[in-house]
Amino acid sequence: MTLSCADRPGITARVTGFLFEHGGNVLEAQQFNDRTSDAFFMRIEFDPGEASRERLREGFAKIASDHAMEWKLALRDRPRRVLLMVSKFDHCLADLLYRWRIGELPMDPVAIVSNHPREAITHTMIDGVPFHHLPLTRDTKAEQEAQVRAIAEQTDAELVVLARYMQVLSDDQARHFAGRCINIHHSFLPGSKGAKPYHQAHARGVKMIGATAHYVTADLDEGPIIHQDVEAISHADTPDELVRKGREIESRVLAEAVRLHLEDRVLLNGQRTVVFRG
Amino acid sequence: MTLSCADRPGITARVTGFLFEHGGNVLEAQQFNDRTSDAFFMRIEFDPGEASRERLREGFAKIASDHAMEWKLALRDRPRRVLLMVSKFDHCLADLLYRWRIGELPMDPVAIVSNHPREAITHTMIDGVPFHHLPLTRDTKAEQEAQVRAIAEQTDAELVVLARYMQVLSDDQARHFAGRCINIHHSFLPGSKGAKPYHQAHARGVKMIGATAHYVTADLDEGPIIHQDVEAISHADTPDELVRKGREIESRVLAEAVRLHLEDRVLLNGQRTVVFRG
Amino acid sequence: MTLSCADRPGITARVTGFLFEHGGNVLEAQQFNDRTSDAFFMRIEFDPGEASRERLREGFAKIASDHAMEWKLALRDRPRRVLLMVSKFDHCLADLLYRWRIGELPMDPVAIVSNHPREAITHTMIDGVPFHHLPLTRDTKAEQEAQVRAIAEQTDAELVVLARYMQVLSDDQARHFAGRCINIHHSFLPGSKGAKPYHQAHARGVKMIGATAHYVTADLDEGPIIHQDVEAISHADTPDELVRKGREIESRVLAEAVRLHLEDRVLLNGQRTVVFRG
Amino acid sequence: MTLSCADRPGITARVTGFLFEHGGNVLEAQQFNDRTSDAFFMRIEFDPGEASRERLREGFAKIASDHAMEWKLALRDRPRRVLLMVSKFDHCLADLLYRWRIGELPMDPVAIVSNHPREAITHTMIDGVPFHHLPLTRDTKAEQEAQVRAIAEQTDAELVVLARYMQVLSDDQARHFAGRCINIHHSFLPGSKGAKPYHQAHARGVKMIGATAHYVTADLDEGPIIHQDVEAISHADTPDELVRKGREIESRVLAEAVRLHLEDRVLLNGQRTVVFRG
Repeated sequence: MTLSCADRPGITARVTGFLFEHGGNVLEAQQFNDRTSDAFFMRIEFDPGEASRERLREGFAKIASDHAMEWKLALRDRPRRVLLMVSKFDHCLADLLYRWRIGELPMDPVAIVSNHPREAITHTMIDGVPFHHLPLTRDTKAEQEAQVRAIAEQTDAELVVLARYMQVLSDDQARHFAGRCINIHHSFLPGSKGAKPYHQAHARGVKMIGATAHYVTADLDEGPIIHQDVEAISHADTPDELVRKGREIESRVLAEAVRLHLEDRVLLNGQRTVVFRG
Repeated sequence: MTLSCADRPGITARVTGFLFEHGGNVLEAQQFNDRTSDAFFMRIEFDPGEASRERLREGFAKIASDHAMEWKLALRDRPRRVLLMVSKFDHCLADLLYRWRIGELPMDPVAIVSNHPREAITHTMIDGVPFHHLPLTRDTKAEQEAQVRAIAEQTDAELVVLARYMQVLSDDQARHFAGRCINIHHSFLPGSKGAKPYHQAHARGVKMIGATAHYVTADLDEGPIIHQDVEAISHADTPDELVRKGREIESRVLAEAVRLHLEDRVLLNGQRTVVFRG
Repeated sequence: MTLSCADRPGITARVTGFLFEHGGNVLEAQQFNDRTSDAFFMRIEFDPGEASRERLREGFAKIASDHAMEWKLALRDRPRRVLLMVSKFDHCLADLLYRWRIGELPMDPVAIVSNHPREAITHTMIDGVPFHHLPLTRDTKAEQEAQVRAIAEQTDAELVVLARYMQVLSDDQARHFAGRCINIHHSFLPGSKGAKPYHQAHARGVKMIGATAHYVTADLDEGPIIHQDVEAISHADTPDELVRKGREIESRVLAEAVRLHLEDRVLLNGQRTVVFRG
Repeated sequence: MTLSCADRPGITARVTGFLFEHGGNVLEAQQFNDRTSDAFFMRIEFDPGEASRERLREGFAKIASDHAMEWKLALRDRPRRVLLMVSKFDHCLADLLYRWRIGELPMDPVAIVSNHPREAITHTMIDGVPFHHLPLTRDTKAEQEAQVRAIAEQTDAELVVLARYMQVLSDDQARHFAGRCINIHHSFLPGSKGAKPYHQAHARGVKMIGATAHYVTADLDEGPIIHQDVEAISHADTPDELVRKGREIESRVLAEAVRLHLEDRVLLNGQRTVVFRG
């Protein structure tokens, strides 16, 4: 269960008291009192014991209403349905699918959508996951995005992962998937616009490169940040070597962000996130 | 307030309920349910409001007794009294005192004890902190340690920090200061015995060096670990350069461990620690 | 070209002078003067221009003989033939093969050998690489190792990578592949013996875990270290989570070590290595 | 000796040949062939043996002239004269002076200049280093900068370190000290303008903060980068805690950049640097 609301005394007592009365056994719990915005965030992982999900949900609705909470009760034993989008570079896709196959990511990949044909993804084992080739031009973008939404609906996709999908979503599409679409931005600062970030990093002579995973908002690279990482580089690294190192950071950062989301460890706090790492 | 006890359902509800009833306002709270040992750990930082410390203490004693808790209620506005011990190398001492002077470490350094004379510590600004030169030989060790204990008692020292104090404490002394004495071990693995760790690291050709801060137990370098960090090195680093890099890691790791202790963020969990970073 | 010898004045001048006279154009050059052992190490990557490999080799033999050098002249345009060995956990294997397929690792995987059947490796795309199932018991170890050597010979394998191959090589086998066999040791210190390193790390309460890639010697986990890395962990990480984080570090560290070896960036310096990162 | 020039075959051979003929013994040598700009960079640390500095200088002038080199021959046994500038926050100053006193930084601090009075720097041991209080207003900036230049001249200062000197140098001043003035920029990207970077980082919800040390150019925060580092942060870090972590990164990054400069390990490559770490 995750919840957020305005910070008032007694919330923790009331929530944990409720779970205790209904026979729930807390396995992991975290809270964050954001003193700068007087907001309260909580994540409780618990064994419901004999309590049914429905009774918990009904009972808790009263508390939630009293505190004007945003809240969610999710089952850990049901993997989330995930729609993966990719363009030509498939290192993030390969990494996510491998982690899924060995049981590391509790997800159910319901579809792969690419603007490139199936033959472009030759390095990755995608057997069994339906592949949709949805090319687009400037003129057909609206139509293609509608197709993506249709696939998401048909597959009941709960999360969309842009695994190096190199097309900017329209504002409408970004809004449609708000809060359930994760992007990997292949440079340290999400704000740094422009193509070929590793060539830019080389030209500027920076000594570190990085990647940022964030929720997609209408403002593509400015959404709430979930996770970031960097790696030291040197003058001797060519742009090609930066690209190689970048692949590694991108895969790592995106996989971690997806894991955190799938385990309901990320809560939105305005334009920021609260991440309960556990 | 920090507490630990056996993990049973309802503890969080009872503790936070108690604070709420007494008008306390939670500022920061963390808990950890150790499923491997069925132990429960909690740290709550709260504004007591109008409740007096004594009333809280009395009221909470009942809960603590019901759950056989180890617990502690500390005031954040009173800095801890700290006894600093050092030998010749004063980089950790200099770093701790600087952080104290700029208000980063909430401590009150009541004494510096060294087995070397005051003149050996020329690089560090220790003005105002009483300095005790307590040399020792194998024959006078017991006597010297008694003097250290006497100073700790006279100054009401709540924490002893071995800031590169290069003498092994006797088992008795270690036991006397158990749980309130922090050491910095100048190598990554606390267990790696022996002098000149950086020369050892060079001879072995390792590619990383590190430092470990831990509570002192009778088994000197095996106490519960509070914090660790490492840095990458290369074949080109001479032993002298490793010593230089080591100074930096040692200072950083010890200062972080002392800060975590001073803010009551470290709880003992058998031979391990629970660290609530906040 | 890589070379090592006793350090005497004038070596660099002579080697680079020779290349210049023969029309070679240096692309990248590194040297290391080990003052602790008076040894000299050099790696030069050069465009031979019109000089044939044979002429360079002949011409250089005289210099090498004068300085009692160990040296090697390798062509960058020919990928090395690599024999991969694996047991049940295939994350390192999957990672190495993916990097090979996207052109990141200049190798030619000539065979995969496992003590488990093909069906155990279901998560990895190994199509096209011959798979050999060579199970072993204590009694058949010598025989199995002879089969491995036979495959290495038949395939002209220049490098053997133990990608989480969980069998200890016999001293004879280790000696046979000395200097051309890389192992990944799934814990930070190569010396820390014993099974289940992540469970050990959890029990000990360490705050960092890591991995070490090294050349195999008769003393299995004590060979010259090529690369190491670590990651911070916390009290909340269960052994299972440590295993997950460990997979990531292991894959990363082994891939980097293999890359460094394939690009001839690793020179042996007694029980240590000189690594020219470029 | 450090040198840079256009990359042509034979440079290394000629330079090392020259040193060998004059009896120099190479202790450490690095070169970098920048293939993107066809530039060549070299640093050689050598024991001149019986050769006098003057003879080497004269002899080498011919080679340098042939290759249109920029070059420098420096004596390691003479520490550089350094002018330190600081405002109110003295953590970088304290750190640099401590490292100097224990012999880690081969420098001779000839003056400290601050726009705040001596009393503002109470936490740092600056005994023995002349302190100059040079306040400034918008109107007196030109005059104050002239005073700084005068002090630099009188003291023969070879390097100016802006150790959290919170005044923007005028273009003229920046140009005057070009290539010999190091600044610490208290945020990861030198380009990110604006005050209160840690508050900005908090508001943006980034998961890492960092610092950049660079040479000062007329474009204050855009000069060639010498060194950078970052640290992970979380949603729970308040702006104050970011400031605390920032102090640590700033001190560390500036000290490393100053050390690299003092040991002549930094060469300019247009708007970038070549850093020979050794």
